[in-house]
Amino acid sequence: MVMIKIKVKEIQYLLNDSDQVVGSTEHYFTNVQTSDMINEESLDWINPLKNNKQEYLCNSKAKVIICEKQLSIPEAIRNNKCLIMVDNPKLTFIRIANEYFVQINEYGIHPTAIVHPDAVISEQCYIGPFTYIGKSKIGDETIIYGHSYIYDNVTIGNYVIIKPGAVIGADGFGYERNEKDELEKFPHIGGVIIQDNVEIGAHACIDRGGLGYTIVEEGVKIDNMVHISHNVRVGKHSAVVSNVTIGGSTVIGDYSWIGPSSVLKDQIRIGIRSTVGMGAVVTKNIPDNETWAGQSARPLSRFTKISFGE
Amino acid sequence: MVMIKIKVKEIQYLLNDSDQVVGSTEHYFTNVQTSDMINEESLDWINPLKNNKQEYLCNSKAKVIICEKQLSIPEAIRNNKCLIMVDNPKLTFIRIANEYFVQINEYGIHPTAIVHPDAVISEQCYIGPFTYIGKSKIGDETIIYGHSYIYDNVTIGNYVIIKPGAVIGADGFGYERNEKDELEKFPHIGGVIIQDNVEIGAHACIDRGGLGYTIVEEGVKIDNMVHISHNVRVGKHSAVVSNVTIGGSTVIGDYSWIGPSSVLKDQIRIGIRSTVGMGAVVTKNIPDNETWAGQSARPLSRFTKISFGE
Amino acid sequence: MVMIKIKVKEIQYLLNDSDQVVGSTEHYFTNVQTSDMINEESLDWINPLKNNKQEYLCNSKAKVIICEKQLSIPEAIRNNKCLIMVDNPKLTFIRIANEYFVQINEYGIHPTAIVHPDAVISEQCYIGPFTYIGKSKIGDETIIYGHSYIYDNVTIGNYVIIKPGAVIGADGFGYERNEKDELEKFPHIGGVIIQDNVEIGAHACIDRGGLGYTIVEEGVKIDNMVHISHNVRVGKHSAVVSNVTIGGSTVIGDYSWIGPSSVLKDQIRIGIRSTVGMGAVVTKNIPDNETWAGQSARPLSRFTKISFGE
Repeated sequence: MVMIKIKVKEIQYLLNDSDQVVGSTEHYFTNVQTSDMINEESLDWINPLKNNKQEYLCNSKAKVIICEKQLSIPEAIRNNKCLIMVDNPKLTFIRIANEYFVQINEYGIHPTAIVHPDAVISEQCYIGPFTYIGKSKIGDETIIYGHSYIYDNVTIGNYVIIKPGAVIGADGFGYERNEKDELEKFPHIGGVIIQDNVEIGAHACIDRGGLGYTIVEEGVKIDNMVHISHNVRVGKHSAVVSNVTIGGSTVIGDYSWIGPSSVLKDQIRIGIRSTVGMGAVVTKNIPDNETWAGQSARPLSRFTKISFGE
Repeated sequence: MVMIKIKVKEIQYLLNDSDQVVGSTEHYFTNVQTSDMINEESLDWINPLKNNKQEYLCNSKAKVIICEKQLSIPEAIRNNKCLIMVDNPKLTFIRIANEYFVQINEYGIHPTAIVHPDAVISEQCYIGPFTYIGKSKIGDETIIYGHSYIYDNVTIGNYVIIKPGAVIGADGFGYERNEKDELEKFPHIGGVIIQDNVEIGAHACIDRGGLGYTIVEEGVKIDNMVHISHNVRVGKHSAVVSNVTIGGSTVIGDYSWIGPSSVLKDQIRIGIRSTVGMGAVVTKNIPDNETWAGQSARPLSRFTKISFGE
Repeated sequence: MVMIKIKVKEIQYLLNDSDQVVGSTEHYFTNVQTSDMINEESLDWINPLKNNKQEYLCNSKAKVIICEKQLSIPEAIRNNKCLIMVDNPKLTFIRIANEYFVQINEYGIHPTAIVHPDAVISEQCYIGPFTYIGKSKIGDETIIYGHSYIYDNVTIGNYVIIKPGAVIGADGFGYERNEKDELEKFPHIGGVIIQDNVEIGAHACIDRGGLGYTIVEEGVKIDNMVHISHNVRVGKHSAVVSNVTIGGSTVIGDYSWIGPSSVLKDQIRIGIRSTVGMGAVVTKNIPDNETWAGQSARPLSRFTKISFGE
C-alpha cells in the first residue's frame, strides 16, 4: 500500500453538516490500526460504549480522533490534536477508512471464468477466477469473487458483493415419498432475485424457488455458509450471520438480525426488526420487534422467568 | 422455454391403473405456477392437507387439476374442467412436472474439468466446469455440477446428482494426542461408496473411511452443506437436510429424516424410520420409528411431560 | 497400491526406547484393515479402552499386534506372533501406518492454479487444481488441495494442509446501521496468519482481521465447514470440529477441543485445555480446564444438578 497523508480538511466532505471539527484541520493521518498499534499518524476513534472515554482520549497517541459530540475535550488536547465530533464515531470512521484504506476491485471478467452466452452481464462488474455464470443477469458495480456457481434464471442487482464459492440458484431440497417409500424430487423450476447492495458470504447457498422465486431484498448482508432454501424472502436491510439455515418459504422481516448458527423452520414468518439469538431453533412465527433465543426459541423475556440453574 | 400444449390424454401413461380422470382429456396445460399465479393454462393440484379443498377447487382458474379420489366434484366443474383423481396428488404433480417442465442436462465432460487418467467414467454422465475427479468411478446418467472435488477411491453409482462444490473422499478428522500433547493424524486410507439414485447438495462433504468405507446407500438425499464423517453409513432412502453434521462411524437407519442443523455424535445408531428434529443434538442411539428432538435430544413424547414455560 | 512386506525389525526405528517387542521381529505385515477385515498379514492394534483385550488378542488373525505394556501375553501367542508393547498403541499404529500406507503428495503447482505474481510460494509445496492464491506467502511442505481461495495478506506456515474449497482472508462480517438504518460495512484491511502444522478442512472459512490479524496457531486442526471470524485467535494444538462458528475477536486457549456444530459468541475467551460440547451455544468466557455444554452453555457439573426429565 502506498503511504498517503490525509489532512482533516480533505475529508470534511465525508462529514455531516452538524458534525464539528475541533483543532487544526491541518493535522493528518496515514493509517488505521488496532487500538494497541495506534501511532501518531493513525486515525483513531472512540467507541461511545467505552467506560473510560476521557482517559482513552488523553492517552491515544493519534493526532486525529473521531469522538462523540458530548465528550468534553481538555484544553491541552484541543491545542494539540484535531477532534472530529460526530453522532456516531464508528460510522464516521467506517466512511473515512473505506474511502482511503480499502482497495477497490477493478472491473472485468477473469479469463478463467465461464459465462453463458445468453447471460446479461454489466460492463461495470467483476467476475473472478473459476466462476461459472449461467443464463442470468448481473448488475452494475457488482463483484463476484472466484469459484461461485450461478445457475440459470438468477437476477443479481447493482453494487452486490459475492464472496468465493457461493452457489446461487440450485434446485431446492423438496421430495415426496412414493408408493415404495422412496423419495421423488419436487420440480424446482423457479429462480432467484438478489436486489441491490446485497452482500453474500463465502460458500453461501441460495436455492431457487420451486415454482416462484427466492428473493433477497435490498441491502441484506449474508455471512459465510448461510443456507437459504427455496422460496424464502429475506426482507431489506436484514443481516443473516454465519452458518444460519432458513427453511423453505420462510419470510424474514426487514431490518432483522438472524444470529449465527440459528435454524429457522420452513413456512414461518420472522417479524420486522426482530432478533434471533445465536444457535436458536425457531419453529414458530416471531412477531415484529421481538428478540427470541434458545432451543424451541421463544421471547427472551420468558427466559427470565425460568431458572436454568444459573 | 418453448411453450408446449400438453393434453391430459397425453399424460395418462404417467398415471396408475387405479387413478381416475373426470372430464374431457382434451383439456390441456402449458405451465406450472405458484398458487397465486395459476392461470387457465396451468396444471394445478390440491394438497390433501388443505382445509378448504372444495373451495380451492371451485376457485382455481386452471382447467386441469390433480386432486384426491375422495374429493366430491360439483357438476359444473365436471363439465368444464379435467380432474385427475389419484391417491397422492403431490406425487402425480411431481411426475408430470418433472417430465415436461424440468430441463435435462446433456451428457459430457466440460472442457475445464480435470479427470484422472485412471478414473472410470461412464460415457452417459455429465461432469461440470472446474470439477476434479481422482482415480474413481462414476456411473451412468450421473450428473456432477461444477467445482466438485472427488478424491481417489470413490465409487459413485448411477442416476446420482451432485451439486456444486461437493467434496467427496477427503481424509477424516481423526487425531491422537502424542507425548507432547500435539495432535497426530490417524491415517485415513479408506474410500467412499455412493449408491444409485443418491443426491448430494452443494458444498456437502463426505469424508472417506479410516480403514474401511463411508457408505451412502441407494436413494438417499443429502442437502447443502451436510458434513458426513469417516465410516458413516446412511441407510437407504433417508433424507439428511441442510447443515447437518454426522460424527464418525455413526449409522443411520433406512427411511429416516435427519432435520436441518442437527448434529449426531460419532459411533451411535439412528434407528430405521427415525426422525431427528431440526437443531437436535443427538448423543445416544435412537430406536427404530422414534422422533427425537432438542438439545441432548430425547423422544418427543417426553417433552410433553416437561413444561418449557410455554 | 504396491504390496510391500514390512518386517517388525524394519519399523523398530519408529518406536520409543522404552517400548518392548515380544516374539520374532521377522514377522511381517502387508496391510492395515478395519477390525472385521483383519487377516494374517494385517498390522493390528488393541485399543486400551476395550473391555476384552485378552480375548481380542487371542482371536486376532494378525501376526503383528500393537498393545499396551501391561497386557499379559499367553505363552502360545508369544511363540507364534510378534507383540509390539507400548504406552499408547493407537499412537504407535498411527505412526507406522502413516509411514507405510499413506500416499505422499508430490510438490508443484497445478497448471490450472492461479498464483499472484507477488505471492511468495515455497518451491517445496503443492498447490492443487483451480486454486487461487493472492499476494500471500505459502511455506515449505504445505499442501493446498483444489478450489481454495487465498486472498492477499495471508501468511501460511510450513507443513500446513488445506483441503478443497477453503476460503482464507475474506473480509469479515462487520456492519454499522447508518442514519437510514441501512448496514454500512466496517473496513476489513487486516490479514490472516496460519502457523506451522495446521490443518484446515474442506470449505472452512477464515476471515481476515478488521485492522489486525486472525491467527491460527501451531498445530491447530480445523475440520470441514468451520467458520472463523475476523480477529479470532485459536491457541496452539487445539481441535475445532466440523461446522463450528467462532465469533469475531474470540480467543481460544491452547490444547482445547471445540465440539462439532457448536457456536461461540464474539469477544469471549475460551480457556486453555477447555472442552466445548457438540452443539453448545457459548455466550460467556470459559475458564481454563473446564468442559461446557448445552444451549447457553455452562459447566457440565451444573447439569448433573438439573433434571432434564431423563
